[in-house]
Amino acid sequence: MENDTQTNIMDAAQSLILDNGFSGTTVDAIIKRAGVSKGAFFHYFSSKADLAHALVMRYAEADAQHLENNMEKAEALSDDPLQQMLIFVKLFEQEMNALSEPYPGCLFASYLYQSELFDEQILEIIHRWMLRWRGRVKDKLEEVADTYPPDREVDLSSLADMLLVTFEGAFVLSQSVEEPETIARQLSHYHSYLQLLFNP
Amino acid sequence: MENDTQTNIMDAAQSLILDNGFSGTTVDAIIKRAGVSKGAFFHYFSSKADLAHALVMRYAEADAQHLENNMEKAEALSDDPLQQMLIFVKLFEQEMNALSEPYPGCLFASYLYQSELFDEQILEIIHRWMLRWRGRVKDKLEEVADTYPPDREVDLSSLADMLLVTFEGAFVLSQSVEEPETIARQLSHYHSYLQLLFNP
Repeated sequence: MENDTQTNIMDAAQSLILDNGFSGTTVDAIIKRAGVSKGAFFHYFSSKADLAHALVMRYAEADAQHLENNMEKAEALSDDPLQQMLIFVKLFEQEMNALSEPYPGCLFASYLYQSELFDEQILEIIHRWMLRWRGRVKDKLEEVADTYPPDREVDLSSLADMLLVTFEGAFVLSQSVEEPETIARQLSHYHSYLQLLFNP
Repeated sequence: MENDTQTNIMDAAQSLILDNGFSGTTVDAIIKRAGVSKGAFFHYFSSKADLAHALVMRYAEADAQHLENNMEKAEALSDDPLQQMLIFVKLFEQEMNALSEPYPGCLFASYLYQSELFDEQILEIIHRWMLRWRGRVKDKLEEVADTYPPDREVDLSSLADMLLVTFEGAFVLSQSVEEPETIARQLSHYHSYLQLLFNP
């Protein structure tokens, strides 16, 4: 279980890593941002590498919960698999539209752009996270394709990946173009593509 | 003009930065990878920041040339704007399919995930690069939409961005899933979406 100090340290570290990279983020900068002592830091984390691991675990768990929550909400709102899938995407689109500040980026993408700095265990967690998204979305797309066979051949595995690709690519663009609507608009194109593909 | 030594240093640095991030890449690691002396490094670059600037300039120029070449090829192969746009995407898809090794990632995305490390001038070059893609692709999509008015309302600006979003997102996924076909498959979905949207 995390307590407040531990959460403060992790929040500060994550925010600094997304702006400066992992190597560019020192323990001194983290404790300054979190407003804690070096002693407090090392009480909770044996090293910066230990913190990197805790951050990736926390991010993966929160993300898995988020994915599951939105899928459950979508499944509760319709019995039709296509509508469920479209609502699922729309829920993310609404969340991204409601952001008052630019999205800070994806911790996993940040790690992957510095992948030599991390051990196999961390890279394996990120790999499993991608496969979880693929699996959960692909299962739903298979139900959709069974109910509404598309006119053209569709690779459901890469179509499932396309949701994560949309998030990750839009995060990168939104770091530079500074248009808060970037992510929602890209999700809306994914939504539109699904409608056209499985046009009932 | 770059000479061989300078090119070696820049190639080594770019490859190291994509794996370790900018902070995680030391001058010592760069000269070791490039097989040059520290004196040679500082003959060409006054600092690591100077090198970061040279890399971003080179990357932007090569990318602009690449974009222009593929658009010109596409325009030479058809008079129809929709076919030109579809060929343009297909050319990138073919290039990505022909890769014998996983794509190493995008230097600009790497910089953006460590944006606090770079000065405004570098971030401005990256910003202009995004706007160049948006502008060039959007111009073509406007011709397409004039010739084949879509059945549904389409925001052409974000539809243009979607090509870069597809590249950037697929680069992130391909760092972890280790499936060389990831990028080409995602481009093929973008191609398919355009066909469905502007279905003549």
